[in-house]
Amino acid sequence: MTAVTLSPETVTARLARVRAAARAAGIDALVVTHLPNVQYLTGFSGSAGALIVLPGTCLLVVDFRYVTAVTALISSLDGQVALATFERSYDEALVELLRREGGLRVGIEAAYLPVSRFNAISAGLAVCAPLPLESPVASPALVSTERLVECARLIKDEVEVETLREAGRRLGVIARKVPRFVREGRTERAVAADIESAMREAGFARPAFETIVASGPNSALPHARPTDRVIEVGDPTVLDFGGVYDGYCVDLTRTVQLGAPSAALRQLYVAVAEAQQAAIAAVRPGARSSAIDAAARTVLERYGLGEAFGHGTGHGLGLEVHEEPRIARQSLRTPDQVVEPGMVFTIEPGAYVPGVGGVRMEDDVLVTDSGCEVLTAAAAG
Amino acid sequence: MTAVTLSPETVTARLARVRAAARAAGIDALVVTHLPNVQYLTGFSGSAGALIVLPGTCLLVVDFRYVTAVTALISSLDGQVALATFERSYDEALVELLRREGGLRVGIEAAYLPVSRFNAISAGLAVCAPLPLESPVASPALVSTERLVECARLIKDEVEVETLREAGRRLGVIARKVPRFVREGRTERAVAADIESAMREAGFARPAFETIVASGPNSALPHARPTDRVIEVGDPTVLDFGGVYDGYCVDLTRTVQLGAPSAALRQLYVAVAEAQQAAIAAVRPGARSSAIDAAARTVLERYGLGEAFGHGTGHGLGLEVHEEPRIARQSLRTPDQVVEPGMVFTIEPGAYVPGVGGVRMEDDVLVTDSGCEVLTAAAAG
Repeated sequence: MTAVTLSPETVTARLARVRAAARAAGIDALVVTHLPNVQYLTGFSGSAGALIVLPGTCLLVVDFRYVTAVTALISSLDGQVALATFERSYDEALVELLRREGGLRVGIEAAYLPVSRFNAISAGLAVCAPLPLESPVASPALVSTERLVECARLIKDEVEVETLREAGRRLGVIARKVPRFVREGRTERAVAADIESAMREAGFARPAFETIVASGPNSALPHARPTDRVIEVGDPTVLDFGGVYDGYCVDLTRTVQLGAPSAALRQLYVAVAEAQQAAIAAVRPGARSSAIDAAARTVLERYGLGEAFGHGTGHGLGLEVHEEPRIARQSLRTPDQVVEPGMVFTIEPGAYVPGVGGVRMEDDVLVTDSGCEVLTAAAAG
Repeated sequence: MTAVTLSPETVTARLARVRAAARAAGIDALVVTHLPNVQYLTGFSGSAGALIVLPGTCLLVVDFRYVTAVTALISSLDGQVALATFERSYDEALVELLRREGGLRVGIEAAYLPVSRFNAISAGLAVCAPLPLESPVASPALVSTERLVECARLIKDEVEVETLREAGRRLGVIARKVPRFVREGRTERAVAADIESAMREAGFARPAFETIVASGPNSALPHARPTDRVIEVGDPTVLDFGGVYDGYCVDLTRTVQLGAPSAALRQLYVAVAEAQQAAIAAVRPGARSSAIDAAARTVLERYGLGEAFGHGTGHGLGLEVHEEPRIARQSLRTPDQVVEPGMVFTIEPGAYVPGVGGVRMEDDVLVTDSGCEVLTAAAAG
């Protein structure tokens, strides 16, 4: 399967947002090569493909492997998207189609298109056959654009919210089971295998990222990978896992304590839980992303754990497991972002103290009209 | 863990090959941003980083998350690699280091560097502070390069061969177990979960790609994903799976038949097995990649199945699951490649007939001095 069926209305609305952004950027055509963006706009989820968004139509360019699937897909979209395929290469196909259909200013997705493809397409547009004298128009010119589709993706529509809600519910159910997997004498790898099996059984197509199971001293490393370390009584174990459900990513962390924690470790649990609650309470329309981050950070600082929290408070979720908005301190890399209804992101403060251990707690939230809904808080029962 | 320890001798040899390629391309410095290439040259396997290869040294640029791990890593490399970190962004760090250390012609990896990063680095190099009069050298200029590191990676060295051999052996052992997973009444998803659990237990860090379990009519789709379809007696089930072991990818396909096949399906099994044997027999130093592909294709054509084999015969394996060489018909995208000892690739012919079913058989081979070694052929027992 290479296509998630979207309704024609959904595609119309998504394309309208992107076309408006393209117009505002002064672009006549947009060449979408980042595959999650192609999927967002058409439902196509193959491993290669490109989309040319024009004012009146869209051309979905795929190779022979996907012609059958895309033919079925576009027949469900009321003529909004047309199929284009080719004999030789994607870039040659894009050149030919842009010459025929594209306007004078053709936007490319500069954050993703590699230099070699940019060069090949530019060269192709420049060296095409001489133009007939009666239509003295210039060749299409490539223009770098950024975030035209990503900005549309920031606010999830109804279909996406329903998918993420169901995915969050399923992941929350698994989270209630994971304490059973963490037993004395088991390895981190074995626990990771159990979590991934549980995700598969729950209907997730695949893990959204490499599952983290970090026990004892490893828990103090925020980016640990599962090892053959055997879990011991007294260990905290950080379990960070996520899955892809109907194309959408959810992400969750629990820290499971085996036996009694040390006093210092107990303090980490208390502080991180309080920080997570404070950040979740700060999520509402109009809040700045840096203020949500500060809500968590201030709590940890009050416990003397400011230095122990070396990462941001959260990241957006959707077709990709890390997308906008970034919930972090304001910086060059993470400009401040005002939160709006329909955004979905993680809230995942942590504290990591070498010699003591690490604790992280992560849930996924949907911004609502009045605050937020925690998507991964499966009801007990 | 973010580093696989390489010996200083291995790093010396790999860097020497890349430096020779850079010299031949007229490059004074090479900026490596494709992460598998960074890993190949240093052992560093974090989720972000860059390497500047200079004639006398290398600078491994990482963000704060990796400073501790990289400090340990470079101390094992006899001073061949130095650590560089930064406050603001990777691209600003690269600009500053290139101004200080880089030569006049700086190669970038055009197949991977996005246009936006190229633009940011170019602009940074152009707008730096005026140069002192006593050293009137021009700013570094960026030059597109391709395949400088990839060509070195084409021939696996001793460490890589040992890793791939062990990974292939472990995957071959799992392949012997998979017929047990394929039982009447089970879903494709459940079988995929079993395979992935078995890979975890066998020491693989993660699947190398999304596991394919395609039963009954789905087996006729070469790019199927596991569904909730229940496997029935009479079905062929294509199982295509791979894992990452110590950073290296292996990949294998078996087709399992539940109950007796139809006569037409039986013919597919016979033809594909013969095609695979013919291709493996064609692998030897000096053979052209297109000739190995033709060996499989000719057999299938003889059975009237030429049209039923719509993909290439194989692809290279290593730090990435699809790398060079491509074992396929010669084309613009897959120029012919002479096979040499130390190359590792898959041999995976298949035949897909709607209404009948599909069969694919895949193993991984290492080119030896006299022919090839099948890495995934675990001894029975």
